[in-house]
Amino acid sequence: MSTLRLEPHHDGSLRYVSTMSPALGDLVTVRLRVPAGLGIDRAYVRVIKDAEPAFTEMAVSSTSDHETWWTAEIECHNPITSYRFYVDGAAGYGWVNGTGWHRNRDVRDDADFLLSAHPAPPDWTLGATVYQVFPDRFARSAAAEGRDTPAWAVRSTWDEPVGRPRGDYSFQLFGGDLDGVIEHLDHLASLSVEVLYLTPVFPAGSAHRYDASSFVEVDPLLGGEEALVRLVEAAHARGLKVIGDLTTNHTGNLHEWFRRAQADPAAPESTYYYFRNHPDDYVGWLDIPTLPKLDWRSEALRDALLRGPDSVVGRWLSPPFDLDGWRIDVANMTGRYRDVDEAHSVAREIRATMRQVRPDAWLIAEHGHNASPDLMGDGWHGTMNYAGFTRPVWTWLANHAPDVLTDRNYLGIPTVYGVPSFPGGAAASAIREASASMPFRSLLAGMNKLDSHDTPRFLTVVGDDIARYEAGLALLFTLPGGTMVFAGAETGAGGGNGEEGRIPMPWDRPEAWNARVLGAHRALAAARAGSAALRLGGMRWLAVGDDALTFEREAPDGGERVLVHVARAAHESVTLPAWWFEEADVLWGEAPVRADDGAWRLPASGPAAHVWRVR
Amino acid sequence: MSTLRLEPHHDGSLRYVSTMSPALGDLVTVRLRVPAGLGIDRAYVRVIKDAEPAFTEMAVSSTSDHETWWTAEIECHNPITSYRFYVDGAAGYGWVNGTGWHRNRDVRDDADFLLSAHPAPPDWTLGATVYQVFPDRFARSAAAEGRDTPAWAVRSTWDEPVGRPRGDYSFQLFGGDLDGVIEHLDHLASLSVEVLYLTPVFPAGSAHRYDASSFVEVDPLLGGEEALVRLVEAAHARGLKVIGDLTTNHTGNLHEWFRRAQADPAAPESTYYYFRNHPDDYVGWLDIPTLPKLDWRSEALRDALLRGPDSVVGRWLSPPFDLDGWRIDVANMTGRYRDVDEAHSVAREIRATMRQVRPDAWLIAEHGHNASPDLMGDGWHGTMNYAGFTRPVWTWLANHAPDVLTDRNYLGIPTVYGVPSFPGGAAASAIREASASMPFRSLLAGMNKLDSHDTPRFLTVVGDDIARYEAGLALLFTLPGGTMVFAGAETGAGGGNGEEGRIPMPWDRPEAWNARVLGAHRALAAARAGSAALRLGGMRWLAVGDDALTFEREAPDGGERVLVHVARAAHESVTLPAWWFEEADVLWGEAPVRADDGAWRLPASGPAAHVWRVR
Repeated sequence: MSTLRLEPHHDGSLRYVSTMSPALGDLVTVRLRVPAGLGIDRAYVRVIKDAEPAFTEMAVSSTSDHETWWTAEIECHNPITSYRFYVDGAAGYGWVNGTGWHRNRDVRDDADFLLSAHPAPPDWTLGATVYQVFPDRFARSAAAEGRDTPAWAVRSTWDEPVGRPRGDYSFQLFGGDLDGVIEHLDHLASLSVEVLYLTPVFPAGSAHRYDASSFVEVDPLLGGEEALVRLVEAAHARGLKVIGDLTTNHTGNLHEWFRRAQADPAAPESTYYYFRNHPDDYVGWLDIPTLPKLDWRSEALRDALLRGPDSVVGRWLSPPFDLDGWRIDVANMTGRYRDVDEAHSVAREIRATMRQVRPDAWLIAEHGHNASPDLMGDGWHGTMNYAGFTRPVWTWLANHAPDVLTDRNYLGIPTVYGVPSFPGGAAASAIREASASMPFRSLLAGMNKLDSHDTPRFLTVVGDDIARYEAGLALLFTLPGGTMVFAGAETGAGGGNGEEGRIPMPWDRPEAWNARVLGAHRALAAARAGSAALRLGGMRWLAVGDDALTFEREAPDGGERVLVHVARAAHESVTLPAWWFEEADVLWGEAPVRADDGAWRLPASGPAAHVWRVR
Repeated sequence: MSTLRLEPHHDGSLRYVSTMSPALGDLVTVRLRVPAGLGIDRAYVRVIKDAEPAFTEMAVSSTSDHETWWTAEIECHNPITSYRFYVDGAAGYGWVNGTGWHRNRDVRDDADFLLSAHPAPPDWTLGATVYQVFPDRFARSAAAEGRDTPAWAVRSTWDEPVGRPRGDYSFQLFGGDLDGVIEHLDHLASLSVEVLYLTPVFPAGSAHRYDASSFVEVDPLLGGEEALVRLVEAAHARGLKVIGDLTTNHTGNLHEWFRRAQADPAAPESTYYYFRNHPDDYVGWLDIPTLPKLDWRSEALRDALLRGPDSVVGRWLSPPFDLDGWRIDVANMTGRYRDVDEAHSVAREIRATMRQVRPDAWLIAEHGHNASPDLMGDGWHGTMNYAGFTRPVWTWLANHAPDVLTDRNYLGIPTVYGVPSFPGGAAASAIREASASMPFRSLLAGMNKLDSHDTPRFLTVVGDDIARYEAGLALLFTLPGGTMVFAGAETGAGGGNGEEGRIPMPWDRPEAWNARVLGAHRALAAARAGSAALRLGGMRWLAVGDDALTFEREAPDGGERVLVHVARAAHESVTLPAWWFEEADVLWGEAPVRADDGAWRLPASGPAAHVWRVR
């Protein structure tokens, strides 16, 4: 039987700080929550000021039978203020940082809590519910029927399997379009979606369109600019935001810029790329010649792509297109090549243009690895959180047959291996360590996700075990961060790699939808939609076992508390003391049970997920 | 009884990499050493390339009954190449990074090994033996007798106790001078000293001279420029290097620059400082008004202090002064104030001037905390390593009475506490984690130290327990990194804070010298001086107990191995297998003993230190 093991706790959420978005020089109140009985009777906050630590003694602001709250004010003296807590008493010497309570040892500074004085992410992005649409595979309007097939493409009918015509998935064109998306906005509403994220809509030489041939038009195959305007208007009319997808790392080799660059070494566009030897020897993304890498030392490129309302970034955020933000493809590598590192300056310039043309726009980075240095708040608002969510959840819940996953490099291990299976402690630590490396608001302005158009489908990762799938989905909708669902997940789509998972939505084949999966998506997304605790709240791990994870989210004002218990297998019961809550509304799963002594016994079966609003 | 627990091992030393100083684009061979019987049969190296991980499979290069060596080549594609190893087999999934072997879990990237393609530190700095002299307190030549006492100073005779005349330690002038240092170079030689580090020699308003009033002359109290020339010549004649101490964070308020700045807001010097409201409201270091902070946004300041042979930095490195490098005071805060961060640009410009006027000069930073982001190789060569040496060693060996230490802020904990006592595991982890945050060569080009002019004396920290002192000293001379001894340590000087420890050397009072302490200093420094293993070698932890630490250093070619066993108390015996070595030359301490089964039993008493060259 596992019992509650509480530690002194702080996280960067509004439950524990007076603001997540101070201005430079502001005083911010920070709070430390210390459970009773731990032997702690003194607390200090240590703040780094111009790279030198300074201590402020904390005062008790409230105390109860169960806990004491300590409080202090800290000055945001630098754009990034890092801090942690020193506590002691009978418990001995201890530090509290983003990875927990460290007793009788010293710690490095890189898990300190972080406050950013750079401009805040828009409120609507914090904990947003996002739905990812890959336009070729989502829905086809009537207008799509008559369109010509471009030379690169091999047409497939909507219900054909995803395959490799001419040896490459990229050439298979199903012909979805933007008006098709408009026809299914009701479906998005049924999933409590707040943000529609479209993968690229620019003309290109592939079905994925990450090899743009232009940034100034919408692919006519998708209905052109007018269709985009129609889609954004229809979405906005429902209160739905729409974000686009931009490749700042590279263009396609058929891009008009690259063609001009190759044609004339004196053309301004020839400065946009890394030519080793003009015209045919140039740097491609991961050495792929069809994806020439952009050289951000070029001021002309910055003018064209980033700067001001007429740039690519600005144009599509402005009327009549009015996109609400950008997801940046390969953001981690953008601007980085050998001894050039312009990644931060690119991100900052995009933010500057956003402030100019659409101040509440969202800027989110693809970044599968250690994004911390890029998330200090002056650049990307957040990331597609592979490192701090997808990977830990997969490595806890994966349960696939050895040969099901046909491409396994996306998680950062060599391709010859499947997804390993780690105990719950490994997942909780990985989530916690990733979270500890960024300001809390950067976590909230990122997107957690179980899968994407670049990965196998999560349902395949868990070996089609729907109970495990629900466990992952419960984590998606309850851990801190925005959530992204890749269209089709809610139907029960599978796929052993990213390409195979890009399955056209089976609108006309109700038998192909998995009702249990759809129900879970709808219910858990709905539970989240109305919850300040789940969207913005603090995050406390309560119990971590090999097969079960238990945590609580708590709204900024402490009024709403959501308790989450997720298991991959049957396990020893987790017990919470009688006073922990009086009543629990079941948002998902089964009810907890009062034992004879009044303590709460959480369900011990598994795989299973339980989400309760407790009072 | 503790037995050997080996892990797959790599460190950034030349035992494990083909070079610590690649050029951009170079291929470097990296080696991984895997003890037999761990269940590892595959190894990959993961390298970050333009912020994206890539894997290279490793090949077995040699194998024996006891271990297998794996090897691969990696490209130094970026100025900083970070890498770690993936291993698996029956042992399961695992990562090897700078903090060790992590099984069945993922790890953040911030303990990856690091290779820097920035210009290398000079060879002579790697693992150097440094002796710190505080000129007012080291030795007085005959010429010092006749010098006037400046207005700020209160004269003391050489044997008077350190005190607080007029309420401040800084005003107490003992009158040591540079010719006094020349007279004792034999003493330095007896300690195997290679580098003499002089704290500031510029004129100032205090005995410590960190409040410089000029950067273009040597304080006449010390003998002026001629004395410095004499000292450096005498030192060089013996093969001894000499480095100076420069405040780049601030000057004194009596500095000629600051006086001109205050006198005339239009003077170029007024751009050197942060005037909030000219002339009297300005930023001082830690708000101390006598130490106005320098504003590195000023190009004029850069010209005067950093740039080229005529700058302050350049002038003293050039003939006739010929200093061999600079220790930079308060380097962590230099150039950092609110939203200004010019710390890296300052360090880089100093390096550029050094390349111009004295390419083999050393640049070492005072940085008491998390120096990692400042140690990537383009700026400071290394730090005075408080975080990765002084603090871990103190918190393992401290043993002082509660009220002995009268100022306790230097280690980064609130002033009301003494030095805590942690188990050996905490010390080993702290050392390992700090080392893991920088290229190995930056560790070697830094200075470990047991104390300095800014801290209590280590002998006081260990409660005058000389056996504990020797344990610390053995760590100083055997862990990776340069070593710094603050003059007087070898005599057995004590002191409960930095000021009290600045005791004049008792040259004329042999009874004040502790012969045992002196002998330990001489023997351990001599052992180190001739050892490639101790100066440059790899570093493997072999056993870590609460009260004993065991590790091995190994020369780049594997020819020399030095085994170190240090204890703070009696402990269970550590045993090494019979094959670990055949013979052990005792460099310090007692001999290890063969047990009946041929295994080696290391001495189990304590406090004690043992250093063996094993074959």
